[in-house]
Amino acid sequence: MVTIKDVARHAGVSVATVSRCINETGYVHADTRKKVEDAVRALNYAPNEVARSLYKRKSRLIGLLLPDITNPYFPQLARGVEDGMQANEFRIIFGNSDENEQKEQEYIQTFIQNNVVGVISSTNRPDSDIYAKLNIPVVFLDRTSSDSPSVYSDGRKGGRLAAQEMIARGSKRITVLRGPVHIRPAQDRFQGAVEVLEEAGIDYNIIQTSSFSFAEAESWAKELFAKHLDTDGVIASNDIVATAVLHEAQRLGKRVPEDVQVIGFDDIPLSSLLSPSLSTIRQPAYDMGKEAALLLIRLIEQGNVDNRNIQLPVSFVERDTTRKVD
Amino acid sequence: MVTIKDVARHAGVSVATVSRCINETGYVHADTRKKVEDAVRALNYAPNEVARSLYKRKSRLIGLLLPDITNPYFPQLARGVEDGMQANEFRIIFGNSDENEQKEQEYIQTFIQNNVVGVISSTNRPDSDIYAKLNIPVVFLDRTSSDSPSVYSDGRKGGRLAAQEMIARGSKRITVLRGPVHIRPAQDRFQGAVEVLEEAGIDYNIIQTSSFSFAEAESWAKELFAKHLDTDGVIASNDIVATAVLHEAQRLGKRVPEDVQVIGFDDIPLSSLLSPSLSTIRQPAYDMGKEAALLLIRLIEQGNVDNRNIQLPVSFVERDTTRKVD
Repeated sequence: MVTIKDVARHAGVSVATVSRCINETGYVHADTRKKVEDAVRALNYAPNEVARSLYKRKSRLIGLLLPDITNPYFPQLARGVEDGMQANEFRIIFGNSDENEQKEQEYIQTFIQNNVVGVISSTNRPDSDIYAKLNIPVVFLDRTSSDSPSVYSDGRKGGRLAAQEMIARGSKRITVLRGPVHIRPAQDRFQGAVEVLEEAGIDYNIIQTSSFSFAEAESWAKELFAKHLDTDGVIASNDIVATAVLHEAQRLGKRVPEDVQVIGFDDIPLSSLLSPSLSTIRQPAYDMGKEAALLLIRLIEQGNVDNRNIQLPVSFVERDTTRKVD
Repeated sequence: MVTIKDVARHAGVSVATVSRCINETGYVHADTRKKVEDAVRALNYAPNEVARSLYKRKSRLIGLLLPDITNPYFPQLARGVEDGMQANEFRIIFGNSDENEQKEQEYIQTFIQNNVVGVISSTNRPDSDIYAKLNIPVVFLDRTSSDSPSVYSDGRKGGRLAAQEMIARGSKRITVLRGPVHIRPAQDRFQGAVEVLEEAGIDYNIIQTSSFSFAEAESWAKELFAKHLDTDGVIASNDIVATAVLHEAQRLGKRVPEDVQVIGFDDIPLSSLLSPSLSTIRQPAYDMGKEAALLLIRLIEQGNVDNRNIQLPVSFVERDTTRKVD
């Protein structure tokens, strides 16, 4: 077994210098680096992750791209990724894309320039060239993609659950808020809800929405009750939108859940703190982030893995915007 | 004026190779790197930020350490830092310290190993050796430190404002929730509030708290009303704690703001969505993050700057947990 001492002796430098060189923890003159690299090669000081990193200039950095950390759904996701990475001594370069293609491209490019060994991306364009051209592992988070490695929750099941719970609790004139069409998970949950409403032969209406921002959600909530004042059940595209619906219902003097039930999606921390507290479909955001980190690490360290598509379960969280059933 | 073409010609390599070498955007063989470095030296291809980075191995990475991104106060701060850095083509390596000294040390160490050129830290230990020993610029964010570069809001003024508004709106038996003793801004706002209450000769009580977590805040809220059932005004240590107080008051059948007024601190996004919506002292978190980014960039690029301590103003946000005044 060749040791770092053998390398140092062969190169005619100190062990500290070899270590500095291998771990890239300090300045090493180009001539010295060459001597160390020659010694590593001559002694076949490998296969060993540390030595290999010398040649491939591997870092322990990964790139994480999220749409916007100030959207309350994403901090849990980011924290899950970071905890998974931190436990395995990887570090994160972090960026917000604002779902803007150019920003996304710039970030991916600088991730590469900074020698990341893998990328986790919550993108609406998993099939984009940006990712196809990367020769490092990529995991898509909260976004499904045909066959690329990805971690997501079961959106269709979540949509089905929301509709089932709403029907079981007596709503008869249901309105579904359809999330942004370019966001795949939003469409999955919408399809799931509509399937169940169709199967049950329940009267329903659809309101189109184009973002998850609270400011815009307020206007959709107004539109909803302006068009369908007698709706007695609202399936919102996420918790932010559900919050706006709840506020508008209260402003109109409607009792929640007696006059109108509301179900959100995500279970962001805010949801349990509203009055009444929000019934919702929970996505395990923290766990999704952590699973994405661990999947990426497996891909980095093993090259390929069997289970590349990890779907986590969703669940109904019963709070006070839905009626009680026995 | 020596150009990159002259360097390429002198080194006997292509311009693309020199560029790859200088910008560290791709693999360059050690021998080739040596040739380029020699040419840069021989031609005195400097002073120039790009060439300089070749020698100092300067990156455009900075390290950002926050206590916990899932605390709803921090995403705005992080977003401000990122926007400020992104606009100037710096990237962020991000970590959560959980206010744990060992985690903090590990992160700072790996920031250095990853060649960051500066650090922004929301730490409770700005005077720690970890920071004193760094030979790159550090900006403390949301934490004041004797003379180190820092960006923070005026906590004492914020505490004074909270007490003044509470008194002006008629509360006579006020309870102040004192935030964690190891968090300096929490103590500043506490001192500010107590100063005003003393000056006005108002009857007040203090409840000690040791964190900003919602789960723990619920127990302090219970303690508060168990000890001081007749309190008619609560100055909370932050919005999370204020939310727990609001819930407990409502659970006890108290009307807010008629029976008891509540003022929070921070103005996190949640605060405007509660029912009743929360009156609070606003810290400009996004702006604080952005200012910290710009200050760090000035320190990196200019070595030293005049205005190293940036204090941003706080303001009272009047919502529905305080009574109206004419």
